[in-house]
Amino acid sequence: MKTKAVFYHAGCPVCVAAEQNVAAALDPARFDVEIVHLGQAKPRIAEAERAGVKSVPALVLGGTAYHINFGADLSVLK
Amino acid sequence: MKTKAVFYHAGCPVCVAAEQNVAAALDPARFDVEIVHLGQAKPRIAEAERAGVKSVPALVLGGTAYHINFGADLSVLK
Repeated sequence: MKTKAVFYHAGCPVCVAAEQNVAAALDPARFDVEIVHLGQAKPRIAEAERAGVKSVPALVLGGTAYHINFGADLSVLK
Repeated sequence: MKTKAVFYHAGCPVCVAAEQNVAAALDPARFDVEIVHLGQAKPRIAEAERAGVKSVPALVLGGTAYHINFGADLSVLK
């Protein structure tokens, strides 16, 4: 079974670069990668917070949040 | 040809977690991943800095630095 990976972003330039490079670099044989734009999917901000996401872009892999560089704090998206 | 990916760390718990999850999640069909412990390979700190690395753990993918969470500032490793 593949591991779920969720990449949260907000459309910022730092986010897009991380999406096109880091999120796209994950092994498709082992990961199902979902891309979530929190600016357009505000109900999912709470889900991201529960996973430990504090800023975007962030990648949640196997339930753990990894913040990749810094685009925006989650609080500004609410 | 595979893209070169270098994961820089310093043995800290945040680094180890990122290595075992994010660095290990990269697609081996597309990336040659090198793991560099900057505490044990100090001559390579300058190389990391040139790639834009400011703290560890960091992943340099195709020449761009992605800082993954925060373990330690590069300056404390010198």
